[in-house]
Amino acid sequence: MARLNVGLIGVGRLGRVYARDLSSRIASTRLIAVADTNAELAKTIAAEFGAARAYQDPADLIADRDVDAVVIVSPTHTHRDIAIAALDAGKPMFCEKPPAIHLEAALDMAAAVQRTGTFFQMGFMRRFDPGYAAAKKQIEDGRIGRPVVFKATSRDPFPPSVAYADPRSSGGIFVDMGIHDFDLARWFMGDVATVQAVGAVLAFPELGAVGDKDNVIATMTFADGRLGVVDLTRNGFYGYDISTELLGPAGTIRIGYIRETPLLVMTRNNVAHDTVPYFMERFERAYTLQLENFAANVLGQRAAPITIHDGVEALRVAIAATRASETGHTVDVSSVEAERV
Amino acid sequence: MARLNVGLIGVGRLGRVYARDLSSRIASTRLIAVADTNAELAKTIAAEFGAARAYQDPADLIADRDVDAVVIVSPTHTHRDIAIAALDAGKPMFCEKPPAIHLEAALDMAAAVQRTGTFFQMGFMRRFDPGYAAAKKQIEDGRIGRPVVFKATSRDPFPPSVAYADPRSSGGIFVDMGIHDFDLARWFMGDVATVQAVGAVLAFPELGAVGDKDNVIATMTFADGRLGVVDLTRNGFYGYDISTELLGPAGTIRIGYIRETPLLVMTRNNVAHDTVPYFMERFERAYTLQLENFAANVLGQRAAPITIHDGVEALRVAIAATRASETGHTVDVSSVEAERV
Amino acid sequence: MARLNVGLIGVGRLGRVYARDLSSRIASTRLIAVADTNAELAKTIAAEFGAARAYQDPADLIADRDVDAVVIVSPTHTHRDIAIAALDAGKPMFCEKPPAIHLEAALDMAAAVQRTGTFFQMGFMRRFDPGYAAAKKQIEDGRIGRPVVFKATSRDPFPPSVAYADPRSSGGIFVDMGIHDFDLARWFMGDVATVQAVGAVLAFPELGAVGDKDNVIATMTFADGRLGVVDLTRNGFYGYDISTELLGPAGTIRIGYIRETPLLVMTRNNVAHDTVPYFMERFERAYTLQLENFAANVLGQRAAPITIHDGVEALRVAIAATRASETGHTVDVSSVEAERV
Amino acid sequence: MARLNVGLIGVGRLGRVYARDLSSRIASTRLIAVADTNAELAKTIAAEFGAARAYQDPADLIADRDVDAVVIVSPTHTHRDIAIAALDAGKPMFCEKPPAIHLEAALDMAAAVQRTGTFFQMGFMRRFDPGYAAAKKQIEDGRIGRPVVFKATSRDPFPPSVAYADPRSSGGIFVDMGIHDFDLARWFMGDVATVQAVGAVLAFPELGAVGDKDNVIATMTFADGRLGVVDLTRNGFYGYDISTELLGPAGTIRIGYIRETPLLVMTRNNVAHDTVPYFMERFERAYTLQLENFAANVLGQRAAPITIHDGVEALRVAIAATRASETGHTVDVSSVEAERV
Repeated sequence: MARLNVGLIGVGRLGRVYARDLSSRIASTRLIAVADTNAELAKTIAAEFGAARAYQDPADLIADRDVDAVVIVSPTHTHRDIAIAALDAGKPMFCEKPPAIHLEAALDMAAAVQRTGTFFQMGFMRRFDPGYAAAKKQIEDGRIGRPVVFKATSRDPFPPSVAYADPRSSGGIFVDMGIHDFDLARWFMGDVATVQAVGAVLAFPELGAVGDKDNVIATMTFADGRLGVVDLTRNGFYGYDISTELLGPAGTIRIGYIRETPLLVMTRNNVAHDTVPYFMERFERAYTLQLENFAANVLGQRAAPITIHDGVEALRVAIAATRASETGHTVDVSSVEAERV
Repeated sequence: MARLNVGLIGVGRLGRVYARDLSSRIASTRLIAVADTNAELAKTIAAEFGAARAYQDPADLIADRDVDAVVIVSPTHTHRDIAIAALDAGKPMFCEKPPAIHLEAALDMAAAVQRTGTFFQMGFMRRFDPGYAAAKKQIEDGRIGRPVVFKATSRDPFPPSVAYADPRSSGGIFVDMGIHDFDLARWFMGDVATVQAVGAVLAFPELGAVGDKDNVIATMTFADGRLGVVDLTRNGFYGYDISTELLGPAGTIRIGYIRETPLLVMTRNNVAHDTVPYFMERFERAYTLQLENFAANVLGQRAAPITIHDGVEALRVAIAATRASETGHTVDVSSVEAERV
Repeated sequence: MARLNVGLIGVGRLGRVYARDLSSRIASTRLIAVADTNAELAKTIAAEFGAARAYQDPADLIADRDVDAVVIVSPTHTHRDIAIAALDAGKPMFCEKPPAIHLEAALDMAAAVQRTGTFFQMGFMRRFDPGYAAAKKQIEDGRIGRPVVFKATSRDPFPPSVAYADPRSSGGIFVDMGIHDFDLARWFMGDVATVQAVGAVLAFPELGAVGDKDNVIATMTFADGRLGVVDLTRNGFYGYDISTELLGPAGTIRIGYIRETPLLVMTRNNVAHDTVPYFMERFERAYTLQLENFAANVLGQRAAPITIHDGVEALRVAIAATRASETGHTVDVSSVEAERV
Repeated sequence: MARLNVGLIGVGRLGRVYARDLSSRIASTRLIAVADTNAELAKTIAAEFGAARAYQDPADLIADRDVDAVVIVSPTHTHRDIAIAALDAGKPMFCEKPPAIHLEAALDMAAAVQRTGTFFQMGFMRRFDPGYAAAKKQIEDGRIGRPVVFKATSRDPFPPSVAYADPRSSGGIFVDMGIHDFDLARWFMGDVATVQAVGAVLAFPELGAVGDKDNVIATMTFADGRLGVVDLTRNGFYGYDISTELLGPAGTIRIGYIRETPLLVMTRNNVAHDTVPYFMERFERAYTLQLENFAANVLGQRAAPITIHDGVEALRVAIAATRASETGHTVDVSSVEAERV
């Protein structure tokens, strides 16, 4: 079986998971190089997962002739330059979400994809979760008719660090957390026309201090008039809770679960079970399937199922929601354009 | 609409519920008389529920010419004499389970029903629970094919008083608690051929001191070779838990729930809900529907859906299980015959 | 025990349920008179539930000296005149929701309550549902801290008739269906400051033809900055689905269930259960408890737990949501004032 | 990190899974050799998972000096000879359940373990399932007190081939399927004293033709008088259903789930979800954790958590249950001794 020699750029928390998957869980990939601005970390991860080469500069990894394809999990603000370099080098590429936090950067990436014709796959792992994939199939099979309302809830079990949450680097809660839900919205329902939103700092004043919010709700109208709503919270202390619903004319489909182990403890007048701790427990399989799909697409010369366009448009909705929550006005998504930053 | 004038014998805990149902919840009945050996209680209940007459002696209630029908909820050991008196008086009758704790007494009642031809309806309220009724219908509709295994679990949230549990008056756990499950077994699967059982005193030594057990398990083979199992416990502290399953060649049906209010409380790493407190909360509606059915049968001159034969045979299985748990041997249900006591 | 002699005005679908509860399920009430513009229906219901008197004109019922208290379940547009007449007559009164569909009428009723000092209880039965009541208690006990986000979903399993849904008589979906959710929002979170909303006709064009919508979503900011969202649909074909959530700093509370009977049918690769058909099955007990509470308050000379003010304010939010969905703008709830109509 | 060089004997259905785990999912193992009587298959699997050597004769694998440890997943009837050869060669060993189908063979293995002092770990993967492991911890933490009743249900979604099910090679349903439940019984409750059982052929006459049963129920008394029940079926068509309960004096613990994807499809009056297809989906993680534990024990020179004694005793209970179901008598587990076969 042909195997894809992959170079991995960025080996922080999520990058380490990608290193494990690329090196040992996916039969069609081989992890041959890693790069990280933290050179020591690059070496450690390379050693742990049997990658022969460790680079500090992503450019060196991209230039490595044995590297067939590049996977980018570096910090979001670095995506643009690395992606464009890889695209120009003709290296097929997978890029973790979001593409960027500023629309301008994402559009630059889109322009480079267009210009070079290099393969580019956007990372939105939920689409590979067996639950979401099964929902998509049920919808396509007509089980509930054509959905009329999209609902999504995402809750993190604890807040990010203030440094991480700073909207100048994270894009704010709608971009950082919500982009997954806006991508699902587009995947299931098509383009978003307008957005309204409310938001507040209700649990973590320190997040407010840097300009972020910890609880937000956005409603959407889709291009064809259908409706949607996304609510996000950073204080879902009970567990990591991601749930999505598609309400159609013949029924409804719900995706999501909150229970981790199959254990029910029933004591005096009380029945209790545990909860999913965090995103790696919930989406472990989706991450693996996503990279497996990336490798199969590159090896099989198939088109990417999630494109830079999907990344750009989900980002545009997230920015529209951010503006709507700041102004209290309905925002036309199409009015969100790149501003030089 | 014709209304049935009912006389109620026995107004203890359950009798009070019957008084309420007969007087106010069932459009087709009127509670016109109550009887209880506790004359004061009879008067109090009669006043509370608007029954015109209160008797101490059940014979007086039976003899009351305005009493169209009799409902018996008095202590089990009194059923035989009261039932036979009412049958002889030609009064249609409803009798709470079990018919008796000794097979002899139950057979005497059966003989009186046979001899007099008077209407007699045995009380097994679970058959009127919307869940069990729906299960019966699903089985008849062939949803899972003809069931091959019957499973039932009954758990009380706290033990009875030692006085109540004494097998000399209660019949022991298999008769007192299990008779409901054995009736369901017969209702869904037909006659029971053989029984094996184990039992122990594992939670309440005081029950062991009077000769009862607090945890028992009985397996059954039905007359046609199919299988069943019933397990009972008196230490189901978490809540009142009644669950039954019918496993068929094309699927399985489960009846039962443990959640009382529709409330889910999710706190740090824990999701919890409450439980059903006890039998009145679980079977409140079944009790009402059962008496409503009784009234409809008497007024409409229809046959009783649950007969003294059903009472006798469920009791026979319960006694067989008791013997099996004492001897460790397989007991043929048909070998259980009346012994003069 | 003292019993309250109640006169019931309006004996349509819900009125019939109230007649049953007042006559037979509530020990502290006696149904002595009914009134309905359909005189035949008034007589039929009076006969069925043993009310001695049947009136066509509500004024006659109100004037009946034996009528201690009045329960109004007549069409919404008649509430104002009937209520004011009863208030002027000094008859304690229970009024089904909504108080009115125009704010002016509701304010007129509020003025009459103020002027006469007569007892007035607003009907919002969900507050008496054991689930919602338990949630309130959990909140007060501090189980999840002070809630920061309120979420509510209401779904009807089929659309109303076009005649019923016509916003000129129903007030539109936010008033007709949503007022329950807006009342819950106020009950759990306090006053609503601003509302945004979207809505569309996505399932029943005939509803659009008369100016109503069938799917709407409203977000709210409460007076103290906390957040809320309510979504309503008239095409919840799978069953009657009412669910509410309170997300707090230490956890979340969910109220709601969709399963009717305790039956699980498991067949090849599929586990299925049924759903709650409609509001009477879901809230049967709440309706009874609500009237029981009304009687206890009147007999015990206690203040009404739900006042005309609660009715006025929930209506004001519903009207604000309607306007917001029409304009796409954020609406200050306090800006919604009575217009002569 | 030290890695254990493992030789794998038997690469059929489950063996292939072990090959994948040993080669790629477990950081502390390296799959260096495989053996199978089907030499072609051995070569194919070796190539697929990067094992350098493929043998036809297990003796050659055992003799391979680079093989540090041996994992046996060959057919049950071959376990004895292979295990004894490996033990004599001083190769630490993991052996898939059951140790054997005849007690004599299992005892021979136990004697060899005793004689050689070589490390031997018995495979009962359920003990490594996060659900069962969490249950064990909850029990040890005293959440429900000391359990008094053990209940277990195992259901296969389709029958084995007649050739596989033949009791002469499988040991019959109690040995083949039930040994997992009897091991759990011993793990949670201690030694089993007596067994009663019933069984029948109710779904697959062809299984009856070779002397097996397709539905069985066994009750147990433990050495200290506590109670247990295990029921098994080969016609659990709705899905693979493994559930276990521990009822204690202060509550109950249930382990098990039947839902595969987090998808709920709600259509007219029906809410449905899918089911777990089969054992690999249910216990995938447990299998991996089990081998990981084996490697850690060998590398760390720790004692095996599951010994040949556990294998022998679970087998003894399974044989006792088989005899009990054939005779209808209570069987003392200690009376089950090896017979030369």
